[in-house]
Amino acid sequence: MIGKLNHVAIVVPDLPAATALYRDTLGAKVSEPVDLAPHGVTVVFVELPNTKIELLHPFGERSPVAPFLAKNPSGGIHHVCYEVDDIMAARDRMKAQGARVLGDGEPKIGAHDKPVLFLHPKDFCGTLVELEQA
Amino acid sequence: MIGKLNHVAIVVPDLPAATALYRDTLGAKVSEPVDLAPHGVTVVFVELPNTKIELLHPFGERSPVAPFLAKNPSGGIHHVCYEVDDIMAARDRMKAQGARVLGDGEPKIGAHDKPVLFLHPKDFCGTLVELEQA
Repeated sequence: MIGKLNHVAIVVPDLPAATALYRDTLGAKVSEPVDLAPHGVTVVFVELPNTKIELLHPFGERSPVAPFLAKNPSGGIHHVCYEVDDIMAARDRMKAQGARVLGDGEPKIGAHDKPVLFLHPKDFCGTLVELEQA
Repeated sequence: MIGKLNHVAIVVPDLPAATALYRDTLGAKVSEPVDLAPHGVTVVFVELPNTKIELLHPFGERSPVAPFLAKNPSGGIHHVCYEVDDIMAARDRMKAQGARVLGDGEPKIGAHDKPVLFLHPKDFCGTLVELEQA
């Protein structure tokens, strides 16, 4: 069912510093920062030849990544995102297999304006997994 | 400098269960488990169309991932691996930029029989980064 790895999301405490690190030290192509107010994050996209790294920093007062940063003040890998062809079929398959979909269990429009859902880390080896309709 | 994301490594407490999860629940193509004794891990490769997920479990008594599992008993994302064309040039660039290479600072032969080095998580936003010669 899962297709490509769409991105790896890394929460960082200092977005300009993290951007400089990926651009200057690691020599990768990075985007300008983009505020995604509805998602409570500012993101810098690191473009690799086969996938993306997303550097995330809290935006606004109710950012969903703020608790992670409070717990991991140096930052850390927050989630992986796998593409699926059909998010509703994916949701049904997850539920049938006993995996918990976060929130109310329904897909939402994600940061790339595509339907997404998040799976409970306790059901996926301690890893927060996002599924995004390709 | 960095090229493709070669893999994301996830340390798991129960390798057969994690393999079943990726194969049956997420519907991905998975390998048989492979014991990599010199590296102290047993690994299952999850083949995605654009990259790999590596499910790691400690092998032997001095596994480098055992402390991570002790700290994260449910498992978790352990590192990301980026490809580079020239590991020695990458090492020199990292050192010149002030990034710390783990161990004695020299590349070693990694789990794919290619030269690799690991960069200090404190220098990379709390993320353990492996560089592998492509």
